[in-house]
Amino acid sequence: MICHIKVYILIFFSFICTVNAQQIARENTLFTAGHASAFIGGLYDAFYTYKDLKLKGDFGLGAPDQLDGEILILKGKIYQTQSSGKTFEVDPNGSTPFSVVNFFKTDRVLKVTKTLHKNQLYAYLDSVLTNKNAIYAIHIYGEFDLIRTRAFPKVTQKPYTPLAEMLSLQHFFNFERINGDLVGYYIPAFMEGENISGYHFHFLSVDKQHGGHIIELLTNRITIEIDQLSNFNVALPQTTAFKNFDFKKDRTEEVKKVENGKAN
Amino acid sequence: MICHIKVYILIFFSFICTVNAQQIARENTLFTAGHASAFIGGLYDAFYTYKDLKLKGDFGLGAPDQLDGEILILKGKIYQTQSSGKTFEVDPNGSTPFSVVNFFKTDRVLKVTKTLHKNQLYAYLDSVLTNKNAIYAIHIYGEFDLIRTRAFPKVTQKPYTPLAEMLSLQHFFNFERINGDLVGYYIPAFMEGENISGYHFHFLSVDKQHGGHIIELLTNRITIEIDQLSNFNVALPQTTAFKNFDFKKDRTEEVKKVENGKAN
Repeated sequence: MICHIKVYILIFFSFICTVNAQQIARENTLFTAGHASAFIGGLYDAFYTYKDLKLKGDFGLGAPDQLDGEILILKGKIYQTQSSGKTFEVDPNGSTPFSVVNFFKTDRVLKVTKTLHKNQLYAYLDSVLTNKNAIYAIHIYGEFDLIRTRAFPKVTQKPYTPLAEMLSLQHFFNFERINGDLVGYYIPAFMEGENISGYHFHFLSVDKQHGGHIIELLTNRITIEIDQLSNFNVALPQTTAFKNFDFKKDRTEEVKKVENGKAN
Repeated sequence: MICHIKVYILIFFSFICTVNAQQIARENTLFTAGHASAFIGGLYDAFYTYKDLKLKGDFGLGAPDQLDGEILILKGKIYQTQSSGKTFEVDPNGSTPFSVVNFFKTDRVLKVTKTLHKNQLYAYLDSVLTNKNAIYAIHIYGEFDLIRTRAFPKVTQKPYTPLAEMLSLQHFFNFERINGDLVGYYIPAFMEGENISGYHFHFLSVDKQHGGHIIELLTNRITIEIDQLSNFNVALPQTTAFKNFDFKKDRTEEVKKVENGKAN
């Protein structure tokens, strides 16, 4: 009996040690399933399961299979906001064509009580995140006077249209005086292509009923948590569509349009 | 006594399972310590130990601290070829400013008995490696009628000169009828910047006495082993030099010059 207990205790500690070692290795790494340029160019078919994505991070953002809205990952839960506005936790057996995640570990906390528009917030972040060649995961939560988000509708007909040509199909949502979380990243310019450089945030209301890709905002009282990352890891789609994708086209302007949700 | 044996057996299997799971996860991943553009731009100071590099791959190539020649990794051993031609196994406590490695697992084997110059060999590889958006690790070994390599001398004076401006300092080595290994990669165009796109090989003679970056070659009887990779992982230097590095400059032409070992 005592012998069995010994065995279980040793297995338990062996397991804990393994989990810890893996956890430390995974921290500080930005994981990307897919390639941003290919996704924006029309590769909306999912290839990476949410179940596997959870093994790569507990925080992040992305897109659902066949576009069908926007994805946000917070505290290990994955939420989808469809173009109807409907927001819900995804089926872990579902999958994504493009997502960016990390295991969030707060390095630094900032409190902001000024009202800041999106560009003012980004200018403030710029003044704080001084290493322009670093990757920062950024979690912002609190009260917002305004949140404006968008979500793309599901695409069904192939060949899919590049994202920058689908802006007229976006659905927009306006929320006044709302509490919630912004989940996003600062990505350095040298990662443009495989990722989307600059700032990029998705939103989830505190009641988990609303979300989407951030188009505009006005802060009221927020907390900003920063996690600086030193590695990035990319899982490339092993699909015929990716194999045949033309990377020669410069999509810098397309990315800008998609990020801002407008054609100019 | 039997109880103790049980405990050891269970710990042993727990350990084996963990190692296996980690091994599978690491396969199919190209690991890069550093950033090619930054390295070619003059960031020759090492930041990643060889000891840690061995945990990321048993096959690959790179550069030593302060340039000081060329690095090749084969079957878990790391070799340095200095500009004097001297070739030796590195001290695991040493470190690298830029290296690319993977755990090599052969997917496909090809035998070539024709004499091919470098460009003919690359054209042959092009005909075989049909996925231009894939990463391939390539191990070529056998007999060569000619091998021409180069190695850069150690840099000592800061600020360091960009690599493309140091071509006159290269040392070249010619070997006729030599047996050995070519270790290298095909990197897709969309990874240019963080890596060096196209083909890139380093050489090690079978007696481990000669090496360097491949400039020209003529095959006699070779075996080609291919390992297709689906992920890439980049460890960014957490240094002031990297923080301050200007990524805006387009270094495409510089990279070409450095790869070919000549200014035009």
